[in-house]
Amino acid sequence: MAITTAPPGETTAPSVADLCLAAKRASRTLAMLGSGVRDAALEAIASGLEASTDRILTANRLDLEAGRAGGLSAALLDRLALDERRIAAIADGVRKVAALPDPVGEVIDGSTLPNGLWLRRVRVPLGVVAVVYEARPNVTIDAAALCLKSGNAAVLRGSSSAMHSNAVLAAVATEAATAAGLPDGALALVGGGDRDELAQLATQSGVVDLIVPRGGEGLKNALKGVATVPVIYAASGNNHVYVDAGADLGIALEVVLNAKLQRPGTCNAAEKLLVHAEVAESFLPDVLGRLSAAGVALHGDERARRAAPGVTIDVADGEDWDTEYLALEMAVAVVDSVQDAIDHVNAHGSGHSEAIVTSSAASARAFQLGVDAACVYVNASTRFTDGGEFGMGAEIGNSTQKLHARGPIGLRELCTFKYLVEGDGQVRA
Amino acid sequence: MAITTAPPGETTAPSVADLCLAAKRASRTLAMLGSGVRDAALEAIASGLEASTDRILTANRLDLEAGRAGGLSAALLDRLALDERRIAAIADGVRKVAALPDPVGEVIDGSTLPNGLWLRRVRVPLGVVAVVYEARPNVTIDAAALCLKSGNAAVLRGSSSAMHSNAVLAAVATEAATAAGLPDGALALVGGGDRDELAQLATQSGVVDLIVPRGGEGLKNALKGVATVPVIYAASGNNHVYVDAGADLGIALEVVLNAKLQRPGTCNAAEKLLVHAEVAESFLPDVLGRLSAAGVALHGDERARRAAPGVTIDVADGEDWDTEYLALEMAVAVVDSVQDAIDHVNAHGSGHSEAIVTSSAASARAFQLGVDAACVYVNASTRFTDGGEFGMGAEIGNSTQKLHARGPIGLRELCTFKYLVEGDGQVRA
Repeated sequence: MAITTAPPGETTAPSVADLCLAAKRASRTLAMLGSGVRDAALEAIASGLEASTDRILTANRLDLEAGRAGGLSAALLDRLALDERRIAAIADGVRKVAALPDPVGEVIDGSTLPNGLWLRRVRVPLGVVAVVYEARPNVTIDAAALCLKSGNAAVLRGSSSAMHSNAVLAAVATEAATAAGLPDGALALVGGGDRDELAQLATQSGVVDLIVPRGGEGLKNALKGVATVPVIYAASGNNHVYVDAGADLGIALEVVLNAKLQRPGTCNAAEKLLVHAEVAESFLPDVLGRLSAAGVALHGDERARRAAPGVTIDVADGEDWDTEYLALEMAVAVVDSVQDAIDHVNAHGSGHSEAIVTSSAASARAFQLGVDAACVYVNASTRFTDGGEFGMGAEIGNSTQKLHARGPIGLRELCTFKYLVEGDGQVRA
Repeated sequence: MAITTAPPGETTAPSVADLCLAAKRASRTLAMLGSGVRDAALEAIASGLEASTDRILTANRLDLEAGRAGGLSAALLDRLALDERRIAAIADGVRKVAALPDPVGEVIDGSTLPNGLWLRRVRVPLGVVAVVYEARPNVTIDAAALCLKSGNAAVLRGSSSAMHSNAVLAAVATEAATAAGLPDGALALVGGGDRDELAQLATQSGVVDLIVPRGGEGLKNALKGVATVPVIYAASGNNHVYVDAGADLGIALEVVLNAKLQRPGTCNAAEKLLVHAEVAESFLPDVLGRLSAAGVALHGDERARRAAPGVTIDVADGEDWDTEYLALEMAVAVVDSVQDAIDHVNAHGSGHSEAIVTSSAASARAFQLGVDAACVYVNASTRFTDGGEFGMGAEIGNSTQKLHARGPIGLRELCTFKYLVEGDGQVRA
């Protein structure tokens, strides 16, 4: 079979190391396959999921029953639950990934050297990409699709709470991909039973080329202690919107409300509002009143609280400026210049998504140059930091690291490159 | 002063953490400086070095005396020694770096999104780059030039054996850069006294953005145990030349001799020779005879030894295939197909530089697609893997990592990027 799974409870399941070695072998073949074969495999996976809806839902019910018996919260149960519509959406997502341009083989740059050597830098798959994630079973297929599209073998580890759903999703993908000609081991699912597996996966140096955690701080910290393979940590976003002196306050209002309220639990939502002193009194009472009315708990510095005396604003403490609330909560400060705003952002931001609302070309330029973050916005909401919104088609997360991937982690970021150098006998003098 | 140094033995020297924080502050200003200011600073450093030749040589004599007293080998003393010609060459190197195109601000790609947002991905400095290195004092200036050219603040740590030379080189660079307007803290030299400093430097998370070790395995291992900041390890190169059936044996001979003999101590030299069975008897006696005559100790598999009975070839043991000799030593094997050669390379190579000599377009394509390495050569010597040879101007090392930098680490690899997104009030629906 093309895809190796280690079903929970099966004592003869291959070890994590064996699954990774099989994935490495598969990656050698995958690197030589054209996009036609990979895209056909994705289409087969999508069709296979649709045709296996009943089988998937049966497995999902086992996870839901176990979750209810184990006391999972309603929110977690909802994240775990699949239905026909969600399965159709997963299949649709696979087809969208298949339709994206192939990142593999793209010539990034190149030249002819003075000695006649033809040099070109070509995008190639990383090899074996491991993705570890929490409750949502759809990630099993999303991650597999992104890895296979980019020519990588995928080793996936979901959480034990979704183990029945994940096992069937991976098995369905297996059956489909086999028929489409993907090599053995191209996709493997690790049971997800215990932390020991995570440590094994994260220490397959020279075999696993990258591990991407998709989950909360607990998962990240578990990896930080043990990983010897490269990790790209999904980002937290302590994001700011700065409203400059002379800004169009209509735009400012729309941007702040959207960045805070449109989906407050996401890493690209705004957590902080900075306002130039010149517009504090004209802007803050309205925007803070609306935020408060929408249920946002506000924390402010002294000047912000004075500027909006009619709104309930707690005194911000030192920790507020460094906290990613991921909730209906926001801290507000008044600053005296765009440079003060830049300094505040660089001191407290997490380097994710930062916005200025301004009418001044000079302020926009200073903010864009001076702010050290993955995405710097002028007169737009921070909520656009997303692989789909950026036209990358899909993403496996967002990075605030500066090496390799910064911002949305899409298909290109799941690749490396190699230099191909062709000559007719050149030797070095 | 623009550049902060911690002279050896001075008890009031700032701590490593303080130097790194000052470098971080400087990096904020550096990120906003145009290339004109940075290039002028490099020119000032070059002129300053030439004008300070006597002062540098005086300090260098102290290091040489200490080295002789401490029993340093003649080879190490030679690497440590400066003279007028070497100082002129260092200054010349700085001018060459200044003349390179500015990597900062380069637009990597971009688009207008359907909602009217202007998106562009722009190359920007990493921030603070730390370089740790061994005896050669010229690295102090080479590394400083590459970091400053790419808009980064540099924190350098040389070895204690070169501490007087390094202190004066850094001080001269200070004086020159001050006049040219670089910010305080843009270049810092850590004393180099003990391993504890290395650990401090490697754990400045959120302050130091990248640490690059230039040195032997001992230095790398010292970092591996402690580093919490991102590291790009300079590569080892267990490189192969594969001579295909039907290859032009004249080209094959030139490529093998060049790759092995031209500079055997470098990471891009060839360490292994693979030969297709069809040409083993026609090719191996000549090439191995010449290598042997040039002083190369040969190790071979059974078939290679049988093909060249007149040449002294030890029996290769299992370790030979995985060993980077960095010396006049080479292991030779006979394979039955280009696929066997690819499998051998992927099993034993270090992913640095791999070459095929072939007349077959199909073999060339298979090798280029199938070999997993930073640089894959067709009909050319592996010795070209070098930032200078590749037209990147200069390099700070070679990487066999797959993330961020693969192959020569030049100015672009010392940068990250950010997304600049400009709108007129866009919010997410």
